[in-house]
Amino acid sequence: MATSSEPRSDAGGRDSIGSLAESAVLGRIVSRLPAVPGAEVGPGDDAAVVASPDGRFVVTTDLMVHGPDFRLAWSRPDDLGWKAAATNLSDVAAMGARPTALVVALAAPAGTDVAVLEGIADGLREACAALAPSCGVVGGDLSVSRTLTIAVTAFGDLAARAPVLRSGARPGDVIAHAGRRGDAARGLALLFAKAVDDEGEPDRARAEAVRAAHADLVEAQLRPHPPVAAGVAAAIAGASAMLDVSDGLARDAARIASASAVNLDFDSAALGAADGPVVYGAEDHGLLATFPAGAAIPDGFDVIGRVAHGDGVSVDGRPIEPVGWDPYEDWDGGTG
Amino acid sequence: MATSSEPRSDAGGRDSIGSLAESAVLGRIVSRLPAVPGAEVGPGDDAAVVASPDGRFVVTTDLMVHGPDFRLAWSRPDDLGWKAAATNLSDVAAMGARPTALVVALAAPAGTDVAVLEGIADGLREACAALAPSCGVVGGDLSVSRTLTIAVTAFGDLAARAPVLRSGARPGDVIAHAGRRGDAARGLALLFAKAVDDEGEPDRARAEAVRAAHADLVEAQLRPHPPVAAGVAAAIAGASAMLDVSDGLARDAARIASASAVNLDFDSAALGAADGPVVYGAEDHGLLATFPAGAAIPDGFDVIGRVAHGDGVSVDGRPIEPVGWDPYEDWDGGTG
Repeated sequence: MATSSEPRSDAGGRDSIGSLAESAVLGRIVSRLPAVPGAEVGPGDDAAVVASPDGRFVVTTDLMVHGPDFRLAWSRPDDLGWKAAATNLSDVAAMGARPTALVVALAAPAGTDVAVLEGIADGLREACAALAPSCGVVGGDLSVSRTLTIAVTAFGDLAARAPVLRSGARPGDVIAHAGRRGDAARGLALLFAKAVDDEGEPDRARAEAVRAAHADLVEAQLRPHPPVAAGVAAAIAGASAMLDVSDGLARDAARIASASAVNLDFDSAALGAADGPVVYGAEDHGLLATFPAGAAIPDGFDVIGRVAHGDGVSVDGRPIEPVGWDPYEDWDGGTG
Repeated sequence: MATSSEPRSDAGGRDSIGSLAESAVLGRIVSRLPAVPGAEVGPGDDAAVVASPDGRFVVTTDLMVHGPDFRLAWSRPDDLGWKAAATNLSDVAAMGARPTALVVALAAPAGTDVAVLEGIADGLREACAALAPSCGVVGGDLSVSRTLTIAVTAFGDLAARAPVLRSGARPGDVIAHAGRRGDAARGLALLFAKAVDDEGEPDRARAEAVRAAHADLVEAQLRPHPPVAAGVAAAIAGASAMLDVSDGLARDAARIASASAVNLDFDSAALGAADGPVVYGAEDHGLLATFPAGAAIPDGFDVIGRVAHGDGVSVDGRPIEPVGWDPYEDWDGGTG
């Protein structure tokens, strides 16, 4: 929606995106993005063309929004790109698919330094290289907004297998989990407790100090490593249901329970906990799967319970509430 | 990023999205979305699974952001959904592909009435029905943000044809265009001139009055009808290059000229203008294509010029500047 043809200069002298043409910003970002070797058409035309040898493709989309999803005082730009890629790759993995490509739409305030966008591009590249090496970015969109927003859409290939849905769990199946349990929530709690200034506002220097002292937990929150390859392994092993644990084990297990019309019962001894962050903590982005009894559980998965007749989620047979993170109920409006 | 488990109530008594759980909001929206008959897995799992019989898929993504892309005083919610779908469908068409599916990620302020999201869903459905009847919504994401943001990713099928790129125009080709020329910019100019209050702020009642008096032009801006089916027709007719005219004929023609290393020369008699909104106006979302001399130009396309040796864009042989809308240079920060 054109309102003016006057370019704005940046008072700070940096290369803010509002001081450059879209094509100039794109020129600085696209070379940092991971390419997809198999893409017939990559970035630069009206649309990309991606191979889907299976005759189908898996697709998922997820937003990261400044405020409810991240604090700029805590996340470095490459952390943002990493997490935006990682959370979407995990959703592809949860279908039993191999990630093939991403498209990325990004909107940022006009005063944003282009270096921030370059950092986001670096994080996208690093996450693809670490988590899904054949996956890259085939296209995107750049815009301005008062709110930094990253919208990633990810694609995957099923190699002729059936997708692993939430609805296939059956009584007698075993419940298994791959990935971290509770560490992302522990990392977030550390940030809220120690990476704030005396008024409680997010503080960059204190965040770096907390990160140095507790790298494992803080990076589980800011730079998660979902077990992407475990998704295909679970599908090959015959997983009956699977999902990405983004909102906490209890809340996400309840989604399998509801879709499959069964009860999911966790074993507190196997989990090492009956409550707390292990059960309720969000954003670990592990894979929760069910397997028929007798299936060979793939490496990386821990057996943590059993599927039973009934409904809902329980621990050692005692029902628990499927509470967890809900972006619509839970954001307090803070940014920082 | 969980900061509180306290749901917020809405002081106004409406159903604001911040007063409801994500699942409750989704329940009110998903039933309004157009389904895709061929989707193996639709909304509700970690990802969707979409057929791509061609063994490839076309993909494009575009953001609509409150402020640079729309004013809430001017656009009704269904206009927003319509335009978000239409602009992405046009990008798929510009590759010569038939649109098959969309995913939609939406972030809105917590105080937004759920009816606004329902209206956006209605517009998505209406646009698909009118512009690409076999296309629907297979998945999405909902989040909160201080800035209403709609991110649509659209898919298309090439039915074994080669994609029509920007780089295939050759000297001697004819230039043809399908769709409106200048009307979206004329509509926007009317809104900025007459749909504002005495302080120059966007005004809803005045916008409705302008729309009633000039429906054709105002709706060309707020609710564009790109000639989606003309994209496949152009590909079948042998179009050598094609793109969606989103930033104005001059600026977008320069993209074909640059990618193809040719000159695009417009005929002012055929255009009916040598400058003004016809040449520089943005957001018409017509299709600009080039065809080898002698090709049968499909219905709906007007021949408006010829490709020549050289570079850049000209009108009647006189070079013009490829200026137009640039979101990074041109947004003045206004919302309304």
